[in-house]
Amino acid sequence: VNRIEQLQLALGEVGADAVVLRLAENVVLATGYWPQIGGLGIVVVPREGEASLLVPEYEEPEVRTRWQGDVRLFPAIRFDGETAGAAIERLLREFAHALGLEGKPIGFEGSFDSVAPPRLDGEPNAVSGATQGLLRSTFATDQLVDVTPQLEAIRLVKSTEELDRLRVTNEIARLGLDAFKEHALAGRTEAEVAAAVESAIVAGGHGYAGTRTVRTYATIRSGPETATGWQYFLHSARKIERDDVVMLELGTCADGYWSDHTRTVIAGTASDRQREAFAAVRAAADASFAAATPGATGHEVDAASRAVVASHGFEQFPHHTGHGTGFRYHESRPQLVPESDHVLEAGMVIAIEPGIYEEGLGGFRWEDDAAVTPNGARRLAEADYGLD
Amino acid sequence: VNRIEQLQLALGEVGADAVVLRLAENVVLATGYWPQIGGLGIVVVPREGEASLLVPEYEEPEVRTRWQGDVRLFPAIRFDGETAGAAIERLLREFAHALGLEGKPIGFEGSFDSVAPPRLDGEPNAVSGATQGLLRSTFATDQLVDVTPQLEAIRLVKSTEELDRLRVTNEIARLGLDAFKEHALAGRTEAEVAAAVESAIVAGGHGYAGTRTVRTYATIRSGPETATGWQYFLHSARKIERDDVVMLELGTCADGYWSDHTRTVIAGTASDRQREAFAAVRAAADASFAAATPGATGHEVDAASRAVVASHGFEQFPHHTGHGTGFRYHESRPQLVPESDHVLEAGMVIAIEPGIYEEGLGGFRWEDDAAVTPNGARRLAEADYGLD
Repeated sequence: VNRIEQLQLALGEVGADAVVLRLAENVVLATGYWPQIGGLGIVVVPREGEASLLVPEYEEPEVRTRWQGDVRLFPAIRFDGETAGAAIERLLREFAHALGLEGKPIGFEGSFDSVAPPRLDGEPNAVSGATQGLLRSTFATDQLVDVTPQLEAIRLVKSTEELDRLRVTNEIARLGLDAFKEHALAGRTEAEVAAAVESAIVAGGHGYAGTRTVRTYATIRSGPETATGWQYFLHSARKIERDDVVMLELGTCADGYWSDHTRTVIAGTASDRQREAFAAVRAAADASFAAATPGATGHEVDAASRAVVASHGFEQFPHHTGHGTGFRYHESRPQLVPESDHVLEAGMVIAIEPGIYEEGLGGFRWEDDAAVTPNGARRLAEADYGLD
Repeated sequence: VNRIEQLQLALGEVGADAVVLRLAENVVLATGYWPQIGGLGIVVVPREGEASLLVPEYEEPEVRTRWQGDVRLFPAIRFDGETAGAAIERLLREFAHALGLEGKPIGFEGSFDSVAPPRLDGEPNAVSGATQGLLRSTFATDQLVDVTPQLEAIRLVKSTEELDRLRVTNEIARLGLDAFKEHALAGRTEAEVAAAVESAIVAGGHGYAGTRTVRTYATIRSGPETATGWQYFLHSARKIERDDVVMLELGTCADGYWSDHTRTVIAGTASDRQREAFAAVRAAADASFAAATPGATGHEVDAASRAVVASHGFEQFPHHTGHGTGFRYHESRPQLVPESDHVLEAGMVIAIEPGIYEEGLGGFRWEDDAAVTPNGARRLAEADYGLD
């Protein structure tokens, strides 16, 4: 898979002469490089010829470790000369002129209502009217072509190198999953457990297998409220009590490649029925992964999970059984839900997360990421432990 | 300050009959409520009459603690009935019809190229062509009016209640600033120190003075590389050595209200010249805060800092001296830089962060947030300690 060639084919299909990418997830897709500051990593891909990556001049050493193509540098942060904004405008104008793109249709990221944050995740960037105005002006065009559907399609199947990166992310996430098992104890607050999980990933993930930057997003829920743990739970200062159910939802990003996990444990001893619910979601996830072969539909992968949960005497909650992941916490495709006709292909990466939630019993969900292969989906990392 | 009335006045100015807000920072501005999932908290403000907040049904209890106005609920996450997307579309259509807004000019967040994340910060939302299409369709209009300039102007001056919230955020940030002082030691890695800072804030911030949810963004740099610490530094697995300079850049968000801090310490003993550099940036920040009175320009506040640094025999680096903050990590106004003609008003919140960076000496920056008053800007929290 050559991402630039895929983008160029897509440009031919939509009739655009170049595409300008400014969202972190698409810069990663095109170049393998995860921008630091949102908006200050920009890829220009002409329909023919070489792609270029624009970044602040001080990022050049890091860029060179990830992207072998053309790099254009500009000053950033400092106010004693050309500003970053002015330099980006100038560089885009130069591309437009040098490549004969003035007045031509230019592709852009027009419909990303959800975005993956850049490394400095406290202030992500979007492609709003500001960037669109910049493209109209610098390319002297009124034809901006939304290539969101093409970008979402291209990223579905991961390359061998991307799968390796995603394995690293999953291994780093395991540091947090193991910390969760260790810290989800009676007497701790939910927030303390979340802090311990994130801390393990941040402290251990930087430098892991060459990883430059790690970001992580943990949320914890405990006790009776896990019975509604299908809601996108958020931890509080609630203190975990003995025998509470404790759930972790965990997003992790290593150098731009994402993972998505859930774990459920008991801070003490599980009841028999809790063990049965736990066994049901574990078996259901296995069934979905086994069903996730090339050619299977999202509906079939979903149904495989629900059938197993039903056979264990439980009802699987009607949130999605799973979804694509990799370049964002949740990719928009494939959707692994009832009625989904998305068709799986080898090399797609999916998260499977069946859940059972019952008043009095609590919530039970377990989620891993796996790559689709002819023999079913294979987990990208193993982080296995019991309920209690 | 009544935020809804301000928005309605702005609608009159731009000739729009309503505005629909979907970015976390603007939902917070209008209602005081920080949405959980990006895009699933929406405010509709008609030019006259009552504003409404649309949220997932399970968020209602939390919403009621922050927003006393009209609330409309919709299902989310589950796939066993109307989906969130379909419900939002239906609700917006109902507003358009009930309020006679069909075919009318509708305000939207058209130029937010930088966004503040919602509570689930691993997957922020943007207002892209998807949301714009939704507004065009549900309001049966082709007149979308970009109200970004109005939103950026309205939020400049904070209300008394917002200042109280920002004080709480600054107090929570102090947990991290103090943890930094405690953990920035020789033998620790930069990533470990970042983890300790974030952990202190996550573990201690939830529940602090009624705070529901805290997010934090720490980055650390140490050693000789701090001489280029004006670059937006990102920690690595580098181990801190004895007498290293260690810098922390810290963003913190408590329930939607942001703070921005920097600290510099020495992991051992400072040299005389390092103490002088440290004293210079501390005195410079004090001078800028003193100069930040109503009527002062961004240029004057910037110049006050640079003059003090020069009088100490150093050169202040040409990144900004400061900027607005509060509803986002960095608000776009006021800019406290050379040539800025932004005029300060009482109730604005600014961050001041003069820096000195010298090869061989290291980087020295210190940053606090303060509210503009007739007597100069007053820090929102005190977290003071020495260089070593």
